[in-house]
Amino acid sequence: MVARADNHGLKLRPHFKTHQSREVGRWFRELGITAITVSSVRMAEYFAEDGWSDITIAFPFNVLEHDALNNLPSDVQVNIILEDPDTIRAVGDILHRNVGVFITVDVGAGRTGIDTTDSVRIGKCVSRVQSGSMMEFKGFLTHAGHTYRARGAEEIRATHEEAMSKLTDIYATYCKGQNAIISYGDTPSCSVSDSWQNIDEIRPGNFVFYDLMQVQIGSCRLNNIAVAVACPVVALHPERSEIVLYGGAIHFGKDSIATDDGIVFGVVYTDEQQIGVLSRISQEHGVVRLNKNSGSDLKVGSIVSVYPVHSCMTAQYLGGYITLDGQHLDHLASSRLTPK
Amino acid sequence: MVARADNHGLKLRPHFKTHQSREVGRWFRELGITAITVSSVRMAEYFAEDGWSDITIAFPFNVLEHDALNNLPSDVQVNIILEDPDTIRAVGDILHRNVGVFITVDVGAGRTGIDTTDSVRIGKCVSRVQSGSMMEFKGFLTHAGHTYRARGAEEIRATHEEAMSKLTDIYATYCKGQNAIISYGDTPSCSVSDSWQNIDEIRPGNFVFYDLMQVQIGSCRLNNIAVAVACPVVALHPERSEIVLYGGAIHFGKDSIATDDGIVFGVVYTDEQQIGVLSRISQEHGVVRLNKNSGSDLKVGSIVSVYPVHSCMTAQYLGGYITLDGQHLDHLASSRLTPK
Repeated sequence: MVARADNHGLKLRPHFKTHQSREVGRWFRELGITAITVSSVRMAEYFAEDGWSDITIAFPFNVLEHDALNNLPSDVQVNIILEDPDTIRAVGDILHRNVGVFITVDVGAGRTGIDTTDSVRIGKCVSRVQSGSMMEFKGFLTHAGHTYRARGAEEIRATHEEAMSKLTDIYATYCKGQNAIISYGDTPSCSVSDSWQNIDEIRPGNFVFYDLMQVQIGSCRLNNIAVAVACPVVALHPERSEIVLYGGAIHFGKDSIATDDGIVFGVVYTDEQQIGVLSRISQEHGVVRLNKNSGSDLKVGSIVSVYPVHSCMTAQYLGGYITLDGQHLDHLASSRLTPK
Repeated sequence: MVARADNHGLKLRPHFKTHQSREVGRWFRELGITAITVSSVRMAEYFAEDGWSDITIAFPFNVLEHDALNNLPSDVQVNIILEDPDTIRAVGDILHRNVGVFITVDVGAGRTGIDTTDSVRIGKCVSRVQSGSMMEFKGFLTHAGHTYRARGAEEIRATHEEAMSKLTDIYATYCKGQNAIISYGDTPSCSVSDSWQNIDEIRPGNFVFYDLMQVQIGSCRLNNIAVAVACPVVALHPERSEIVLYGGAIHFGKDSIATDDGIVFGVVYTDEQQIGVLSRISQEHGVVRLNKNSGSDLKVGSIVSVYPVHSCMTAQYLGGYITLDGQHLDHLASSRLTPK
C-alpha cells in the first residue's frame, strides 16, 4: 500500500482501527508512515502515547468527549471531522486546543457526511470552521464505503470512479490552489484503483490483514489474509461431516459471506490445507462443515486456523495477537482496561 | 424463573454466561440460588472467587485447559461435560481433582452431543466415566437450542415436548431410581413450558436480561428486556429520516431479526418512547431509521437507548454495566484482563 500511494503521489494516512496495535503501528513507522487515522479519541490517545504526532479521528466527533479531546497532548496535530453547522459551533465553544477540521461529505455510501450536491450546507460548514477560533480548516473527508457492495475489481473501480467524480466541484471551489485537501479511502478502492484525480490523501485500514469479505469484494486473494484465529476442536461429529470448535460469535461476530455452498462465517485450515468452512456459529460454538475426506485426523484438542470474514471485528473481540514467532502484540481492547 | 422452577419441582442452575457479572450473580444468591452454569474454565474461576461452590462448565471440555481445571479451588464442586469415549479417557489421564461428568446428548439442536438414539456410544461413554478415577457420573446434559427457531409460545412448547420425549429411554436406563439426573434448559422452553417430565434441573441464562431475539421467539415481551446500550447521536440526517449513532458492531455484533420493516439490529428509545430501529451497522456506526414524527428534538450529543438483538453478545462486547442508579457492575470481559 505504501508503494501504491507513492506511485500515485498520494499521502498514505493508514487507518489504525483494524489492528489497534502499538507494535503493528511501529511496522508502519519503519516504512516511513508519519500520519495516521483512528476512530475514537481513546484510540488517538493510545497511539499518541506511542509517539504518533499527526492523527485524524475519522469518526463524527462526539461533543460529550470534549475533555478527552482537549487533553490530548498539545504537541500532537489532531484533526476531527464534522458535518453539521450547529455542531461546529458547539465544538468551537468547548475547544481549549487547536484542532484541524475536515468537513465530511457523502460520495454515495449514505452513512455520514453532507451530500456533495448540498453546496449551501457545505459552504456554511466551511465558513463556520474558518471563522471558529482554535479550528483550522483542513478540507474534506469522505469514505466510499459502498465499494463493499462491489464484487470484483472492475465493479470496485466503477464505484470508485463515480464516487470520486462527485468531488470535482468541491475540489475546484475549496481545494485547488488553496490550503485544503481531499482525504479519501476505503480498502477496496485503494487496493485496486489507479485513478486518483483531485485526491491528496488515502486512509485504507483493513488491508493490513485483509479478510474473507475483502476476497469476496475483490480487493485481495485468499493468500493475502494475514490474520487467523487458532481454535481448539471440542467435538467430533463424523456422522454429519462436522466438527465443533471453541470459536463463536465472541470471536468472529456474525459477519458472513454468501457462497455457492451457503452462508460462511470463516474458512478453516490445518497447516496449509483448507479442511472446511465455519457454517454455523453461536456464542462460543463454531460448527465446521468439513470438506470431503478432510479432518479425519483431528481429535478433541487439535488446533485449527480460522480465517475471519471481518478481521477488524475479530481483532477487536480477541483483543491481542500472537505472531507465528510467538511474539505477543498488544491491542487497544486489552490495554484500555488496564489501569494506567 | 425461580418461581417457575419451584412450581415445577426443578432445580434452577442459571447460566451465568449472559451476564458474567459478580454483582448480578449475587442477586441470584439472594434469591436462594446455590448452583450455577458457566461456559468456560475461566468463568468458573471468576465465579468461584466470588464464593460459588457448585459450578457446571456447560461447554465441551477442552483438554488443553487441564491445568486451569485442576487448579480450580478443591472445595468447589466442578462438573464438566463430555461426549466422546476417547476424550473421556484423555481427560481421565489429566485429572488431579475430582470432577462430576455429564454426558452431552443432542435432542435436536444438531450442535454438540450424542444423538439420543445412539445407545452404543452413550453406553460406552457412561461406563468410561463410571470406571474413570476422579470422575463421578452425574447424568446427562442437553440444550434444546433449536427452540430459537420457534416463533411464538406454542411453537416453543411443541419443540420442547418433542426434544424432551427423546430423553425417555435415557432416563429409564440411567437415571430413574439412580444417582444420575437430566439437566436441560434453554431460555425459550424455561420461559413458557409447564411440562417437565424426567427433567431434574434447568439451566436458562438469557432470561436475566432477555432481548429482541427472545421477543421474536416468544419467550418474553418487549417490556421484559432489562438491558440497553446508551449511545450518543453523532450525525443527523433528517433529509433521509435517519440519525447516526456511535453504536455499531463493536457494541451489538451483527445479530439481527427480520421484521416486516426489514432487518433490525436494535430498537431505539428516548425515555419511554420508541423512536426508530437500528437498520444498518458497521464497525462503530449505527444508522437509525426514525419513525414518522420522531427524533426531531435530537441533537448531536443526545443519548438514546438501544435494546439489543442478542443481550449475551452485547454484554460481552461492552464488558460492564451501569444501573439506572449509577452503580457500576463488573463483567468478566473487563476483569479477565486486569492483572491479579
